[in-house]
Amino acid sequence: MIIIGEKINATRESVGQAVSERNGDFIRELATSQDKAGAGYIDINAGSGNGSDGREAMKWMVETVKPVTDKPLVIDSDNPDIIEAGLQVYGNGPVMINSVTAEPERLNAVGRLASERGADVVALAMGAEGIPDNVNKRLDACDVIMKTLTGMRVLPEQIFFDPLVLPVSVDAGQGRVTLDTIREIKSRYPGAKTVAGLSNISYGLPDRALVNRTFLAMAAEAGLDAAILDPLDMKMMSVVRVGRLLGGKEKSARSYMIAHRKGKIVG
Amino acid sequence: MIIIGEKINATRESVGQAVSERNGDFIRELATSQDKAGAGYIDINAGSGNGSDGREAMKWMVETVKPVTDKPLVIDSDNPDIIEAGLQVYGNGPVMINSVTAEPERLNAVGRLASERGADVVALAMGAEGIPDNVNKRLDACDVIMKTLTGMRVLPEQIFFDPLVLPVSVDAGQGRVTLDTIREIKSRYPGAKTVAGLSNISYGLPDRALVNRTFLAMAAEAGLDAAILDPLDMKMMSVVRVGRLLGGKEKSARSYMIAHRKGKIVG
Repeated sequence: MIIIGEKINATRESVGQAVSERNGDFIRELATSQDKAGAGYIDINAGSGNGSDGREAMKWMVETVKPVTDKPLVIDSDNPDIIEAGLQVYGNGPVMINSVTAEPERLNAVGRLASERGADVVALAMGAEGIPDNVNKRLDACDVIMKTLTGMRVLPEQIFFDPLVLPVSVDAGQGRVTLDTIREIKSRYPGAKTVAGLSNISYGLPDRALVNRTFLAMAAEAGLDAAILDPLDMKMMSVVRVGRLLGGKEKSARSYMIAHRKGKIVG
Repeated sequence: MIIIGEKINATRESVGQAVSERNGDFIRELATSQDKAGAGYIDINAGSGNGSDGREAMKWMVETVKPVTDKPLVIDSDNPDIIEAGLQVYGNGPVMINSVTAEPERLNAVGRLASERGADVVALAMGAEGIPDNVNKRLDACDVIMKTLTGMRVLPEQIFFDPLVLPVSVDAGQGRVTLDTIREIKSRYPGAKTVAGLSNISYGLPDRALVNRTFLAMAAEAGLDAAILDPLDMKMMSVVRVGRLLGGKEKSARSYMIAHRKGKIVG
């Protein structure tokens, strides 16, 4: 499973402050620590500032983070203009856009950017009406996205569908809905990939970290290719590493043994 | 997921000693503690004593354990004579036999007992040649067992197929083999159930408990209906409880909240 480091997100207070103060050291440290901890991609969300503020913040973030990591960045915004601004200063190398939905205006605008840049793109299994509570409506949104993006010459392999996650504390069937959506996406679009931020599953429950780790293991088995999470969470990353070995993604137990020797496996 | 408590097994030294000394208090305590911790079935293995020794030990164990728990017992032996002895003194109520294989003599003898008694039966996905290293040969064994047992009027619902588990330290593909075998069994025999003892997966690795817990979560998602494990392992049982909630087996988060309040959820 690919890990996308989630920590550089301006909706977190400390990051939002670092963005407004243009505190590059703080942001760079978040990038390098996530890289070192095993992130395969680094998500950057510079906030939803209005007009040029949001675009300038994203440009600053890309220019701040890109020089300090070899990992691809994930340009994270629900505003296509902010995504475009980030891509303008990105330069060469692989990049991911986070995210599109089936909502036509956003899908077309972000689809065009992904197509022009050859970017991977996170595609949320929802339309303009919010997150559907069932598998079929989430797949309807995926169908719209798949058809539209491939029509714009985005390859299926560039599309990371996010099945979306609602709390089981509100509706106990929602774990099953997410897991079944992952399976159905993998079955329906063999080339496409899946990605999710899983922590919403445990909203309102005690021992959230345990619930999140268990859901990660189950989602891996359902076919999840990538997860957006905190790679500095050692227990979570231990489950990621064990899941790779048990899921048949490793040629031997060597990577696990090395991680254990480096103190990276925490039970 | 149904939990089968594994602790009353004479291959464990303390249990073997209790059997030879006919120390009923020790065995009863193992039964009641597993029952209280959440076991749905209690496995009893009285050892493989020769001739009447093995049969008498199993009879003693059944007569010792059955009065102190409402949970069905699992009569565990590779010797059909010992299983028959256990069933002779079992009396009324649901019971499970552990186990048959596709090896014809054992399959016919144990199949006859299961059919006559209306017992559930654990069916190992192997023949006389030992555990196959691949999914197809394990399924071949399951086919033989399914055909033979249903021919003896054992219902598919009474059959708990064990996909079998080999260590990933020896062959890193074995996690995938077990998980795929579970999925294929569930797909091929919709009425039948699956059961496994998972701990062999981590043989030879450090942090075995973490590996076992992660495999439990993945196996649950692959379709495992029951696990043979130590229900006094609080961390493992926490994953079992979380897995039930996340896998859509609960109508609400209520059971999880109650378990948490009772201190039964350990992250």
